[in-house]
Amino acid sequence: MTVIDLNADLGESYGAWTLGDDRAMLDLVTSANVACGFHAGDPTRILDTLRLATARRTEVGAQVSYPDLRGFGRRDLDLPAADLTADVIYQIGALQGLATAAGTRVLYVKPHGALYNRIVHDERQAGAVVDAVIAIDPSLAIVGLPDSEVGRLAEAEGLRFVPEAFADRAYRPDGTLVSRTEAGAVLHDAAEIAERMLRLATEGVVTAIDGTDIALSAETICVHGDSPGSVAIARAVRDALEASGLSIAPFASSSR
Amino acid sequence: MTVIDLNADLGESYGAWTLGDDRAMLDLVTSANVACGFHAGDPTRILDTLRLATARRTEVGAQVSYPDLRGFGRRDLDLPAADLTADVIYQIGALQGLATAAGTRVLYVKPHGALYNRIVHDERQAGAVVDAVIAIDPSLAIVGLPDSEVGRLAEAEGLRFVPEAFADRAYRPDGTLVSRTEAGAVLHDAAEIAERMLRLATEGVVTAIDGTDIALSAETICVHGDSPGSVAIARAVRDALEASGLSIAPFASSSR
Amino acid sequence: MTVIDLNADLGESYGAWTLGDDRAMLDLVTSANVACGFHAGDPTRILDTLRLATARRTEVGAQVSYPDLRGFGRRDLDLPAADLTADVIYQIGALQGLATAAGTRVLYVKPHGALYNRIVHDERQAGAVVDAVIAIDPSLAIVGLPDSEVGRLAEAEGLRFVPEAFADRAYRPDGTLVSRTEAGAVLHDAAEIAERMLRLATEGVVTAIDGTDIALSAETICVHGDSPGSVAIARAVRDALEASGLSIAPFASSSR
Amino acid sequence: MTVIDLNADLGESYGAWTLGDDRAMLDLVTSANVACGFHAGDPTRILDTLRLATARRTEVGAQVSYPDLRGFGRRDLDLPAADLTADVIYQIGALQGLATAAGTRVLYVKPHGALYNRIVHDERQAGAVVDAVIAIDPSLAIVGLPDSEVGRLAEAEGLRFVPEAFADRAYRPDGTLVSRTEAGAVLHDAAEIAERMLRLATEGVVTAIDGTDIALSAETICVHGDSPGSVAIARAVRDALEASGLSIAPFASSSR
Repeated sequence: MTVIDLNADLGESYGAWTLGDDRAMLDLVTSANVACGFHAGDPTRILDTLRLATARRTEVGAQVSYPDLRGFGRRDLDLPAADLTADVIYQIGALQGLATAAGTRVLYVKPHGALYNRIVHDERQAGAVVDAVIAIDPSLAIVGLPDSEVGRLAEAEGLRFVPEAFADRAYRPDGTLVSRTEAGAVLHDAAEIAERMLRLATEGVVTAIDGTDIALSAETICVHGDSPGSVAIARAVRDALEASGLSIAPFASSSR
Repeated sequence: MTVIDLNADLGESYGAWTLGDDRAMLDLVTSANVACGFHAGDPTRILDTLRLATARRTEVGAQVSYPDLRGFGRRDLDLPAADLTADVIYQIGALQGLATAAGTRVLYVKPHGALYNRIVHDERQAGAVVDAVIAIDPSLAIVGLPDSEVGRLAEAEGLRFVPEAFADRAYRPDGTLVSRTEAGAVLHDAAEIAERMLRLATEGVVTAIDGTDIALSAETICVHGDSPGSVAIARAVRDALEASGLSIAPFASSSR
Repeated sequence: MTVIDLNADLGESYGAWTLGDDRAMLDLVTSANVACGFHAGDPTRILDTLRLATARRTEVGAQVSYPDLRGFGRRDLDLPAADLTADVIYQIGALQGLATAAGTRVLYVKPHGALYNRIVHDERQAGAVVDAVIAIDPSLAIVGLPDSEVGRLAEAEGLRFVPEAFADRAYRPDGTLVSRTEAGAVLHDAAEIAERMLRLATEGVVTAIDGTDIALSAETICVHGDSPGSVAIARAVRDALEASGLSIAPFASSSR
Repeated sequence: MTVIDLNADLGESYGAWTLGDDRAMLDLVTSANVACGFHAGDPTRILDTLRLATARRTEVGAQVSYPDLRGFGRRDLDLPAADLTADVIYQIGALQGLATAAGTRVLYVKPHGALYNRIVHDERQAGAVVDAVIAIDPSLAIVGLPDSEVGRLAEAEGLRFVPEAFADRAYRPDGTLVSRTEAGAVLHDAAEIAERMLRLATEGVVTAIDGTDIALSAETICVHGDSPGSVAIARAVRDALEASGLSIAPFASSSR
């Protein structure tokens, strides 16, 4: 593996409330998962972020979510499949409209928060997301956890599925993420994180929370940017990858 | 004038709440102004209405609004231009996405409620709506009141502007609508309304509330469908127009 | 058992959307479960309903819900306990304020929809609801399903718990409701429903969906009023109970 | 004048978004205007702020607003009087409920943002706010601009009206605020601001933007806390007032 993508969640400010440093992160990542208004992001702030992405030629994806501003999309919601499909289409369409206005376009879909986690294993909701992508634009890739239900369904339908790794999260031996409610779930040491991601990108291996090495296939690495510390971590990851000679490029432009 | 379009506001149900009889109206009108979720309509219900429109080959427009579910978009909101432009793009994009999923596409934009009324005279907000259409798709027509600010700005920017008349509304001698808060603003007699619209379509004239005849240029007539009585009125209008030999056809398909 | 209460869900209109016939139902029931704005009801419409309840001396309860207008509170939401407690307090407080303005007061709390069903068995969410009631006013009763987790926790904390039966719903042999997604879950025959409720009120027995008789302890019977048919059923239930000599009176006024 | 109150807008975080430093400000002010969820604040975050206020014995008021999370209540909304009254009652009631849970109570109402500005001159909306306070609790004071319509109507109805001054805002010669859209509207120099407020508190005079001195009657001074700089200004104001021997105490506890 000689090419890797870096992605981050952006456009998550809402009205008077600012979250994250989109400008800083757009200098570091190659793919921007832009909020669509259901868990974060209002049309004005989303449009601002899309314009910044256009200026930097960063690729854009739709960060779709359950409708839950108050809970930032992190609370599990038992949506009927028809509602979830319609909600995802609505969000992608809205972002496509704003992307057109900003001079760019949406190339992929990355479900957010509780939806992201649920479609790792929930076949009904995973299928609803896949149905939405097929209905609006089957050329859109879907980003998600490796070995997930959504990945299997997406590929079975002929969609491109892009497996991702999380830079600052601990893994269980089975390749799933350690829950945020458990100790050690989130890593904070920039050097350690950079080293882990370098190994992942070059060897396809990451050390799980129990100390064992596990194989992890990822075409993109998610970094965060919602605090000064997280921006520094993202920078450290990028610097380590570049220093090792890896090419950092958007997955959406490649056809692997 | 030998061709006229009939339009109606549809897709205005929300969750458990049903409003209007979309099926009945889709058999009567040639253009469906579909709500986009800001004053009414949720993605699931909107998608249902779009599928019905596809099946009947009714043309579809985006009924964009202020963000005001509680007030059904009827309360004047002093939006900054940048917010209004972004909100309108977001809504059109969302509807485009759902329309694609339903096998149809959005051909025009009709602002709703308080926004509709405000951009008759408010240059800043009218310009914001025009900017939104230019930014997302300048081939979209804008439907509005004849002699309105939004019409002037749209045409100055090279957009198609489609003037409309309201079947069940009384007019002032200057061609504006009598406010709903005044007596006689809304007409209820189906035969009278049908007769008025026939005269409008054939002579370009309507009798104002003071009894004088005024010239009114309209390419489309708005009929309502939110009660059994209003559906009957819409049917009477359609029947009268057809009986007189007029062709009822979507404006969006014509190139006048 | 010689006294029984009838309750109904009211105040569930929202903005331009009307749901149910609050006037008709307020002539039939003795307890009004008034929506608090989270699944239905806006402050204006809620206030209207509360004024009608005051005029008829109907007792008022807070019909609290997950925050989900779009889904009418019927979609399961995995709320953290602290959020659920705060949400329930907020809703009760808001309704108390409107009740004061309408010249009445809130005497009980009835969770709605998915929340109602979840706290039958979910100890964490049931406890969060109980905590909310204790925090704002421990004199409020809680209405719920007999033998439910929320009932046990409420009584353990010294709150009054009022078990209820549903007039138009089928029961499983274990006393829980047949899910709405199963055949036969909702009954439609007014005479049959009235007969069932009369037997429940006088014998404490209802026939389950498998034909067996089960004991069911209920101090209040929930009737619906969201369609002309459901209002007729509510009237049949009331008429049958009264004809048999039962006293229909609000549970909140009794101290059994 | 030997006693003065300091107030600040608090509880304005929402879900994942944090705004302001409520802990720091609660050490500086004597009255906390707590958001009620319509422009900012969710039940959980509001409850947290109320608990902090209880611990510090800071008085609590309801910071009521137009329903406009996206616009932070700063966008003018043409609400019918009945809707505005019901909305204000709802918000006060919700905050009363949360205040009870937090061991404190609501003593006053301070309209926020665009509503605050509109009821300086709009008699209909000012009356709607006054009606709401009378309906829910006429012992609540209303905080607003001196010489405003809301003040006149409140006092005509026998309510207590508390005129306030803004520490960091420039005044016109007529005593109204210079609009935020004009240059010089917001002051930033902590020493200058502290000096102005000291003169206001001791002499009842402030220098207007044209250099003239104007009389300004205020029982409370509004300070902001939404940035590190604004917290420092608030501290400078408090220090200057205390150093001069003034007593800083909540207006709600006084009966002047």
